[in-house]
Amino acid sequence: MRLIGIGVGPGDPELLTLKAVRLIQESQVVAHLGGGLARRIAAPHLPPGMPELAIPVPIGSDAGHAYDEGARLIRAEIEAGRQVAVLCEGDPLLYGSFMYLLARLDDLPVEVVPGVSSVMAATAAERFPFAAGNDSVMLVPATLSEAELERRIRFATAIAVLKVGRHLGKVRAVLARAGLLDHAVHVAWASLPEQTVLPLAEVDEAPYFSLVLAHRRGRAA
Amino acid sequence: MRLIGIGVGPGDPELLTLKAVRLIQESQVVAHLGGGLARRIAAPHLPPGMPELAIPVPIGSDAGHAYDEGARLIRAEIEAGRQVAVLCEGDPLLYGSFMYLLARLDDLPVEVVPGVSSVMAATAAERFPFAAGNDSVMLVPATLSEAELERRIRFATAIAVLKVGRHLGKVRAVLARAGLLDHAVHVAWASLPEQTVLPLAEVDEAPYFSLVLAHRRGRAA
Repeated sequence: MRLIGIGVGPGDPELLTLKAVRLIQESQVVAHLGGGLARRIAAPHLPPGMPELAIPVPIGSDAGHAYDEGARLIRAEIEAGRQVAVLCEGDPLLYGSFMYLLARLDDLPVEVVPGVSSVMAATAAERFPFAAGNDSVMLVPATLSEAELERRIRFATAIAVLKVGRHLGKVRAVLARAGLLDHAVHVAWASLPEQTVLPLAEVDEAPYFSLVLAHRRGRAA
Repeated sequence: MRLIGIGVGPGDPELLTLKAVRLIQESQVVAHLGGGLARRIAAPHLPPGMPELAIPVPIGSDAGHAYDEGARLIRAEIEAGRQVAVLCEGDPLLYGSFMYLLARLDDLPVEVVPGVSSVMAATAAERFPFAAGNDSVMLVPATLSEAELERRIRFATAIAVLKVGRHLGKVRAVLARAGLLDHAVHVAWASLPEQTVLPLAEVDEAPYFSLVLAHRRGRAA
């Protein structure tokens, strides 16, 4: 059988696609990596009693070993004739850890079901006209250095800085120097009940699953 | 009542979210702009007999007038107590024309339902590990000049060039000069039955709804 990487969207269980729900329910095993947010998002759609494979992923240098071991378990299920659905927050191939499994299993039949990214959920939460016409969009992780962040945002019209967390101060400093602080918004837990949307200048703390949106021009005309 | 901008995803009617389907079916009117691709995508989910508002959008200088007129018609429906769902290809706020309506109607109650973007559908079609770890992602429309395209892709790890169409030759030239042609892939009609995924170097013609994916490194490790 095959491996399916399924984007379960940014948080709201209603933001799964019809295809994601169908393929989860047609699978014989669901797998999930790391902390379990993807499982929490998909939980209302899991058939009772469906076998689950929880693959813990430690932060840091042991991650490679965890992916090796997870890939080994998944391969065994597929070779035994079962379809394995890997649940992925947002989209599987946009900053998702699914691709580390894919790199280890791409000799098997694989399908990827795209999902709604947290970037889209954040712009929807703000009702922010993110990109139009000739705009360019830069998605960049807050984990980069100040110099790298500055270089990458320089020529973009619209900017989303992902994985803000403890990098909040750095992100704010970079956007302030670029003259973008007045238009920057912080969105945490987009599409979940605990969602917040605030001007970046007013935010003191940021969870890992939060992002900053900034824009070089006013709203679309 | 209110205006809802609904992302209907990249093409496959199964890539609507559960929320998109529910809110379409709870609305009293569906509206769609331009050529009708969004309507075609959502067609299997429209209740029979649902009133529709087709808003033609001419290419070029008359577009502003068309949005004015479309916004006027939608406002009348909402002020008469009806909920209007505007169907949008992909995501409403990522290169969608919904934002031109939003700019004219944002004094009314508005909700935006995020959708799966064609970028996500294209990376899923290629099973391409698009962005991981510290990667940065640049989304850029092929309509920009060669010089602008070059400047914008310079510091991105992963690149998606949208709206390729008649700009195919220019996009290929820019990526070749950047040393990215060997890793560039052209995806047309992502997620639809007519989908194609080909090395960019082998493509001679591109529809408007196609994009090019390029990457500065190999696959995720």
